[in-house]
Amino acid sequence: MHLSDDERFLGVAAALSRKGMEAGAGGPFGAVVVLDGRVVGEGWNRVTSTNDPTAHAEVVAIREACARLGRFDLRGATIYASCEPCPMCLSAIFWARIDRVVFANTREQAAAIGFDDALIYEQVPLPPAERAIPCEHRPLPSALEVFRAWAEKPDRVPY
Amino acid sequence: MHLSDDERFLGVAAALSRKGMEAGAGGPFGAVVVLDGRVVGEGWNRVTSTNDPTAHAEVVAIREACARLGRFDLRGATIYASCEPCPMCLSAIFWARIDRVVFANTREQAAAIGFDDALIYEQVPLPPAERAIPCEHRPLPSALEVFRAWAEKPDRVPY
Repeated sequence: MHLSDDERFLGVAAALSRKGMEAGAGGPFGAVVVLDGRVVGEGWNRVTSTNDPTAHAEVVAIREACARLGRFDLRGATIYASCEPCPMCLSAIFWARIDRVVFANTREQAAAIGFDDALIYEQVPLPPAERAIPCEHRPLPSALEVFRAWAEKPDRVPY
Repeated sequence: MHLSDDERFLGVAAALSRKGMEAGAGGPFGAVVVLDGRVVGEGWNRVTSTNDPTAHAEVVAIREACARLGRFDLRGATIYASCEPCPMCLSAIFWARIDRVVFANTREQAAAIGFDDALIYEQVPLPPAERAIPCEHRPLPSALEVFRAWAEKPDRVPY
């Protein structure tokens, strides 16, 4: 049987999801970042084993790919995820300038086994003060002054 | 002058934003996680200096707080951020079960100095296939099988 690249890399992501789960690393999620036809970052969920709520498979794979490539963006890359990325991972994918996402299981299938992103999808677009976690705006001159200093900083590195 | 706890901790977040910027660590953003009246995690943006697009101030502060406390949730905590959290950080705050967010600068003020979250706010709620970064659903039996195995795993750690 001939597998397409997409099928092959998605299969690697699924295999990592199983590996991480069986090792007790965290939830059953895996991901790989692929650039120019090769895997440059691998990840599986490590939330509970490393006490890091941000250690989702996609975030781990992005961090590994960037570290390996020595860059803070992944233009031209595809990320393959065993499950639809949650809003945190999706936003990380945008910040990393990844070109394309391919995923296998859906958010509904994740919800059915206890991982429910629906609340976060609902909450992100709300006005800050109306969220389930209240987000209070308190203007502070010393904080705004740092923004002004950034705008005038000659050696700033944009991203 | 008497400062409230909120003013004091927000001032610490602003000071970290300046420290990180001046050190060339990354963008002008700082954050602290506070639990029971003390700082348990500090962060400033390190995207460009560590080649990590997920190293926003809030994510760094959450990771540090969780590592220090030896837990993967931060129930009862408040996060103080020098700027309104982006969708990635906001989602991380939800995953970390933080109780409350206090921020100084707004997303509009961030956009004015070149950090524009608006695209990501727009994109997160869209159907996956309609996003600027296309998110393609490719069902894969081996991925779904791992979800089934998780549901039956006797020693799984929920989060």
